[in-house]
Amino acid sequence: MILVREEELLPGSRLTTLVDGRARHLLEVLRVGPGAAVRVGLLDGPLGEGTVAEVGSGQVVLSCVFEDTAPEPPRTDLLLALPRPKVLNRLWPQLAALGVGRIVLVNAARVERFYFDSHVLAPGAYTARLIEGLQQAGDTRLPQVLVRMRFKPFVEDELNAAFPESLRLVADPGGGRRMADFFPPGRAERPQRVLLAVGPEGGWVPFELELLERRGFQVVGLGRRTLRTDTACVALLGALAEHLR
Amino acid sequence: MILVREEELLPGSRLTTLVDGRARHLLEVLRVGPGAAVRVGLLDGPLGEGTVAEVGSGQVVLSCVFEDTAPEPPRTDLLLALPRPKVLNRLWPQLAALGVGRIVLVNAARVERFYFDSHVLAPGAYTARLIEGLQQAGDTRLPQVLVRMRFKPFVEDELNAAFPESLRLVADPGGGRRMADFFPPGRAERPQRVLLAVGPEGGWVPFELELLERRGFQVVGLGRRTLRTDTACVALLGALAEHLR
Repeated sequence: MILVREEELLPGSRLTTLVDGRARHLLEVLRVGPGAAVRVGLLDGPLGEGTVAEVGSGQVVLSCVFEDTAPEPPRTDLLLALPRPKVLNRLWPQLAALGVGRIVLVNAARVERFYFDSHVLAPGAYTARLIEGLQQAGDTRLPQVLVRMRFKPFVEDELNAAFPESLRLVADPGGGRRMADFFPPGRAERPQRVLLAVGPEGGWVPFELELLERRGFQVVGLGRRTLRTDTACVALLGALAEHLR
Repeated sequence: MILVREEELLPGSRLTTLVDGRARHLLEVLRVGPGAAVRVGLLDGPLGEGTVAEVGSGQVVLSCVFEDTAPEPPRTDLLLALPRPKVLNRLWPQLAALGVGRIVLVNAARVERFYFDSHVLAPGAYTARLIEGLQQAGDTRLPQVLVRMRFKPFVEDELNAAFPESLRLVADPGGGRRMADFFPPGRAERPQRVLLAVGPEGGWVPFELELLERRGFQVVGLGRRTLRTDTACVALLGALAEHLR
């Protein structure tokens, strides 16, 4: 799937000229020619179908027809203790592919300060990785990314207003209830949105866990295994996905 | 956690001398000295506790005391269409960390033949990656790896004998029942072992899916998103984990 931005469409028409990695993918991997059909999506808008109008050296002109409505936005948000840059870089496309609405990256006692200086936190860098994940999964909803270097003020002063109605879960290995326990079958009041908190690889410290619990977070676990942050996030989002389908 | 092999223990004692990456990790990351306690595990055996007896330049002597019983073996096996080498290499430690008993890598119509020539299929290469995942997760059970270059003979002639009693699930985006539907609450006959089949990034071809269904595989899905093989495996194993806890 090829994602285009509204501003890349020629005003008054649905034509777009691609010259970057997307053009290379169409030309070198899919080997399209004029008339070829390509799945397209409008970033944060509807899915659709594109028809190759023209190909030139390194460029592709697509004529796009979009559906009337955009896909439903994700119903999961993630509060994530900032992982190592290498792990976060691996995680970006996977989070977008699995469908996450907002990603809040926070500091925690067991997060190294220098992680915040990494280029993987530059919007230009992560937006490209997120779009990669959306294109893989066939979704158009770009996750919003927030970075908060102070954990306590964020949780105490911002969190309630930012996530007023979500079920709040905090992952902790070893403890907690199973994901399914929060989604009892047949109950009318099944949660519609979830805010999932995932700690650093060394875990949250007791003070952080208590602060989260005072803000209504309930502990959920996948078993006794300690997982790398990226594995834990993907496994937890996988366990959540079927309950929010 | 530090994993040691039976043959690395001095006969008649529980002493082992580490000189490789494990010694470097103890010396440079954990900065242990004599007397320090270290979580240890015996590969495919019990967990335990080690005490640093001696440190030298680049080497650590550990005295180990193991528990009486080994952790329960994983209850999930994976039948995986061989992914791209880069993806598989990323997947090894994650599979071991999540707990997989056997990993069968098979050919499929949408698998490129040259993937089978990759060094990531060399036992020396993948065993190190699997052990990395076990040490992360605190488990000792090394997944067994089988490589089968012919899909049909494997499914028709080997699969029943190799996995006689497992619930057989095949992941397919877009279709299928939810994971939870296969684990009805309170039922005595809940499945105890699961064999999960995950196809190539382009999906199984109809012939392959029919062959699997004739062998008792039922389709399970996580929603309509097409996921990269590593993301799909981890998300599905995450969704399974809570049902097999």
